[in-house]
Amino acid sequence: MAATVNQDLRRERAAASFNPDLLTHILDGGAENTRRRREIENLILRDPDFFQHEDLNFLTRSERYELAIKKSATMVKKIRDFGISDPNEIMWFKKLNQIVFVEPVSVHYLMFIQTLLNQGTSAQQEKWLLSSKRLEIIGTYAQTELGHGMFLPTLLHQATAEQQERFFMPAWSLEIIGTYAQTEMGHGTHLRGLETTATYDPETQEFVLNSPTVTSIKWWPGGLGKTSNYAIVLAQLYTKGKCYGLHAFIVPIREMGTHKPLPGITVGDIGPKFGYDEVDNGYLKMDSYRIPRENMLMKYAQVKPDGTYVKPVSNKLTYGTMVFVRSLLVKDAAQCLSKACTIAIRYSAVRHQSEIEPGEPEPQILDFQTQQYKLFPLLATAYAFHFVGAYIKETYHRVNEDIGQGDLSELPELHALTAGLKAYTTWTASSAIEACRMACGGHGFSHCSGLPSIYVTFTPTCTFEGENTVMMLQTARFLMKSYDQVRSGKLLCGLVSYLNDLPSQRIQPQQVAVWPAVLDISSPDSLTEAYKLRAARLVEIAAKTLQAELSHRKSKEVAWNLSSIDLVRASEAHCHYVTVKLFSEKLPKIQDKSIQAVLRNLCLLYSLYGISQKAGDFLQESILTDSQIAQVHQRIKELLTVIRPDAVALVDAFDFQDMSLGSVLGRYDGNVYENLFEWAKKSPLNKEEVHKSFYKYLKPLQSKL
Amino acid sequence: MAATVNQDLRRERAAASFNPDLLTHILDGGAENTRRRREIENLILRDPDFFQHEDLNFLTRSERYELAIKKSATMVKKIRDFGISDPNEIMWFKKLNQIVFVEPVSVHYLMFIQTLLNQGTSAQQEKWLLSSKRLEIIGTYAQTELGHGMFLPTLLHQATAEQQERFFMPAWSLEIIGTYAQTEMGHGTHLRGLETTATYDPETQEFVLNSPTVTSIKWWPGGLGKTSNYAIVLAQLYTKGKCYGLHAFIVPIREMGTHKPLPGITVGDIGPKFGYDEVDNGYLKMDSYRIPRENMLMKYAQVKPDGTYVKPVSNKLTYGTMVFVRSLLVKDAAQCLSKACTIAIRYSAVRHQSEIEPGEPEPQILDFQTQQYKLFPLLATAYAFHFVGAYIKETYHRVNEDIGQGDLSELPELHALTAGLKAYTTWTASSAIEACRMACGGHGFSHCSGLPSIYVTFTPTCTFEGENTVMMLQTARFLMKSYDQVRSGKLLCGLVSYLNDLPSQRIQPQQVAVWPAVLDISSPDSLTEAYKLRAARLVEIAAKTLQAELSHRKSKEVAWNLSSIDLVRASEAHCHYVTVKLFSEKLPKIQDKSIQAVLRNLCLLYSLYGISQKAGDFLQESILTDSQIAQVHQRIKELLTVIRPDAVALVDAFDFQDMSLGSVLGRYDGNVYENLFEWAKKSPLNKEEVHKSFYKYLKPLQSKL
Repeated sequence: MAATVNQDLRRERAAASFNPDLLTHILDGGAENTRRRREIENLILRDPDFFQHEDLNFLTRSERYELAIKKSATMVKKIRDFGISDPNEIMWFKKLNQIVFVEPVSVHYLMFIQTLLNQGTSAQQEKWLLSSKRLEIIGTYAQTELGHGMFLPTLLHQATAEQQERFFMPAWSLEIIGTYAQTEMGHGTHLRGLETTATYDPETQEFVLNSPTVTSIKWWPGGLGKTSNYAIVLAQLYTKGKCYGLHAFIVPIREMGTHKPLPGITVGDIGPKFGYDEVDNGYLKMDSYRIPRENMLMKYAQVKPDGTYVKPVSNKLTYGTMVFVRSLLVKDAAQCLSKACTIAIRYSAVRHQSEIEPGEPEPQILDFQTQQYKLFPLLATAYAFHFVGAYIKETYHRVNEDIGQGDLSELPELHALTAGLKAYTTWTASSAIEACRMACGGHGFSHCSGLPSIYVTFTPTCTFEGENTVMMLQTARFLMKSYDQVRSGKLLCGLVSYLNDLPSQRIQPQQVAVWPAVLDISSPDSLTEAYKLRAARLVEIAAKTLQAELSHRKSKEVAWNLSSIDLVRASEAHCHYVTVKLFSEKLPKIQDKSIQAVLRNLCLLYSLYGISQKAGDFLQESILTDSQIAQVHQRIKELLTVIRPDAVALVDAFDFQDMSLGSVLGRYDGNVYENLFEWAKKSPLNKEEVHKSFYKYLKPLQSKL
Repeated sequence: MAATVNQDLRRERAAASFNPDLLTHILDGGAENTRRRREIENLILRDPDFFQHEDLNFLTRSERYELAIKKSATMVKKIRDFGISDPNEIMWFKKLNQIVFVEPVSVHYLMFIQTLLNQGTSAQQEKWLLSSKRLEIIGTYAQTELGHGMFLPTLLHQATAEQQERFFMPAWSLEIIGTYAQTEMGHGTHLRGLETTATYDPETQEFVLNSPTVTSIKWWPGGLGKTSNYAIVLAQLYTKGKCYGLHAFIVPIREMGTHKPLPGITVGDIGPKFGYDEVDNGYLKMDSYRIPRENMLMKYAQVKPDGTYVKPVSNKLTYGTMVFVRSLLVKDAAQCLSKACTIAIRYSAVRHQSEIEPGEPEPQILDFQTQQYKLFPLLATAYAFHFVGAYIKETYHRVNEDIGQGDLSELPELHALTAGLKAYTTWTASSAIEACRMACGGHGFSHCSGLPSIYVTFTPTCTFEGENTVMMLQTARFLMKSYDQVRSGKLLCGLVSYLNDLPSQRIQPQQVAVWPAVLDISSPDSLTEAYKLRAARLVEIAAKTLQAELSHRKSKEVAWNLSSIDLVRASEAHCHYVTVKLFSEKLPKIQDKSIQAVLRNLCLLYSLYGISQKAGDFLQESILTDSQIAQVHQRIKELLTVIRPDAVALVDAFDFQDMSLGSVLGRYDGNVYENLFEWAKKSPLNKEEVHKSFYKYLKPLQSKL
């Protein structure tokens, strides 16, 4: 097949200044990782059980849902067959399938792995899992595909040993397919506002579950609509006339065997969405629905048979799990943006259009400066986010080890950082993916480009697992706390240590003014310093705004709200600084000189582009001078030209197989047009030569006019 | 029904500082226009023939296509029945229908109205149209729905009288349903690159049409896929061994009566896209397909029976039509963004979430500063774009009258301006609509919000009718020409007259430095001056870049390409200036003081927000000082608070009926949640209690595990 590769792409690849395979190894964290990842990918991509089906874009929602269920069922068996046991490998396995279809339950299954890895060393876990053998544990991960989501993790975490025994085995054999019903129609982020009630009735020793208002209807849980027959329901617990807040209950919702909704239960699909067609996000309404007392998850809090409430002994925050999931979302931002860049850049190398010189052949659109300016900063961003993702993963594992040794000191910063970086990377990647789509012109609108699907599958990450603005404000809370600590004389460490050097803290305030003279816009380290100064300045501005609002005798909360624009800006600047810093710190660690050189250019482009977009922030307080900003602008243009010959090799290094890209425009072989035509011919509207509407409406109209 | 309006919205409306009806009149251009628009809207919205069908989000593409055909057929008759004859009113009529479904042929039908109005006064037109009675002309517009698109305008414009007679009557009675096949798989913007050939065969006096390569397959024409039986095909004309460039040919593609593709023709639908589900954008491949010589449109150029080519006498550019269509897209940007703002702001007034003060009731999310900061600048943008749209429309009519009197002097500027403003407003509105969607949190992802559909229907405007980057560069070309004229001593007039005052032109260069002292950030006029200086500066930078590239002995075209980032920036700054200027000039014309006050605040917010986003541009060359930028930031926060009580009334004034909004979240009565539930219950996945995949995959798996 290599012989048929499009000649433009062949020429591009031949001219690259580096070996993309070596860069792939860097992204994978080592050649051995690359080898094993490819091995697993091939297991899946060459398995007809997974990929012998019509293009998803041609299917109805119901057909897509059915296919997703079929694939999930297949996966349960395949993972066992293949003997894949490493959690990372499981993740590759699933990711690859997620590329072509979104499973009935999305990222939540990872919560399960996480709970298992973090809390699975106890004797209890042995019992819960019936077998501690790796292979069987993995069997359980796979089950989460079938609607279990947060169901099993919650069961493992909060159920008593008796409850584990009662529910785990049926869940294991898929008699119970569970989901986790937390979000309500009227309440997402703010959990305390949830309205579902569970009122204890000591007469019958049952809880009576109610959805007292329309806003209290459970809304969104994945797999709830059609797939699950059980749900773990979060509800306000009432006993002896008093409310004790949110607790979790195991609730059967459909009859075993027939799968029909049980009396008192109203359950269904919430309707079509922007993407996620395969997922049966559902609603659940309960009307005086009774469950036995024993179905309350009672490992921590309890309700005694007489209705006495027993407070939980400890109620630890699960910081670790949140950090883990958010770190995956950063990785996902990097991956999805990398895919979009791969498609847009390969297509731009294949597509010829217009003319630069009259009479000359039409150039590749990648030769237009405006096209390079649209795409290369996004390519640089994709690389930046890969390194951010890798950093969070490493840090998470290190901090986790520290926690194992009783040292929790780094956790708050890591938690605050991942919140902000989740928001920063998902917002950036979301709009960047759309920019890639629009850079492909008309064909970018076609579903065969793969880009619309990448976008609608990715953009929800801005909202789920913590709405981005809320996330930014969490990071801001940490930054404000750090700022206060500096003001009270404490020396900070970690990524916020730059606050120690705040101008207002320094003995020699003129240092800032001295700075621009030494700034070298060709030095990643120097640019990192500039971002650091910007972050410090914006943190200080936010802190001063907050102080000013407080001094007007507003309450702390009102003052916080009235400062929140500044707080979000500070968080963004902090995250931007961290990203630039991590990218530039990666460079000296790269052995291969040619790769180091090309990544250095990407790092410079990423940093300089950010400066040019936020020039006001850098000009204020003279972090950079007017003429430096003009130089930044000039340097960006030079970098576009420098990066141009390596652009295709840089996306090749992301190492997406065609089947996982799912794009006619982004094919490795560049044979775009013939495959565009082949794809279109299979479109459902082409199945009948003459559409029935001709006979129904057009022909009758013709005879009338 | 008024009694059931959500109490939050009732409170918001009661507290508004102005009467939204009066503002609606301003947007409509007078109370009488509002009255008549509502009258026509009610004719359609209350007509069960148009709106008695299932929610479009629940239908397959084939079902949506069928519904669109049905509606188009209905419309042909209804417009006659209702006796609607004013072109503006026809536009409202169609717009309203476009809201709920995208017709098989989109904006192109407007090209027809345009051609008719511009070129329809000749005696020839009388003949073409068979009747000059208004009502029948309108019948013809309506036909364009059924796949005619550019077909009829081209016919009217380029066909000989004989051809008119031969093709017009069948098209009129819908025996011929035509489309306009220009774009090819490999070529969009750059028409000269089109590859389809029409080779004259003097033996048979026929043209032989061929799609010689895969890239030459006609691709995208609306209504080509399934609906049309004729196409006007653009092809490279060959006769006597020589190529004479692009010409238009009338090509039958499907058999009359049976609607089956004719031998030699391969035609079909190009497959599903990001939106426009109802539209059968199609492909057309021709293999030595013969048409009579007489099917070449020969009003201008001709091929004689012996194959002799006769050059066209004149080949005038149709500037006017392009201006007209682009002006409609600016209006469309304003309308679609207004809709998105209406939905997001009403929902934000109804939605309660989280807490500002602990223990207090959950506030409306519109009370969060971050939410106001997300939405109010977009609301201000929507208003700004309404006034830009109105200005272009007025100017277009004025310039058209001048042209009637032989004065073409203003046309080049208007043409250049509309290109840039089309790009500027569609880019801005496209990302703003997505921002509105994301500001609605989880429910914004549901199709019931209406926001995904508004986005996917609107975002193609960034690409069609002139790709936005290409449009920006067209404006830049005019700006560069104007700059050169100033340099050569000519005094400019019109919107580019600020270039007369370029610092480099002035006798006293220190004026710029003096400027910031007198800037009043609370004065729209003063802010307009700031935008003017910024535009002047960026135009000059682009011109200097271009000069510098040229001086390096690069060709003019290469230099242009290497300056194109700067050129686009200059165009953007010019369009931004024009928008600010038009908004601020609108204010003194508003009689009602309360409305003037609220629009003044929106104008200030629009202008200041733009400055804060592009602070670097204003800081450089000291258009604004550091401390002024800080004040801008502070003033924006104050304006959010000032606008807050009027936010709902400001979107009410856009006057969208619920049926045309198509959004559960944006309902006028604010009864969001109960209707969310009602909508979901009708979702196709809920039609069967148990999905068939349960029996096919889940139940068998349960018994195996």
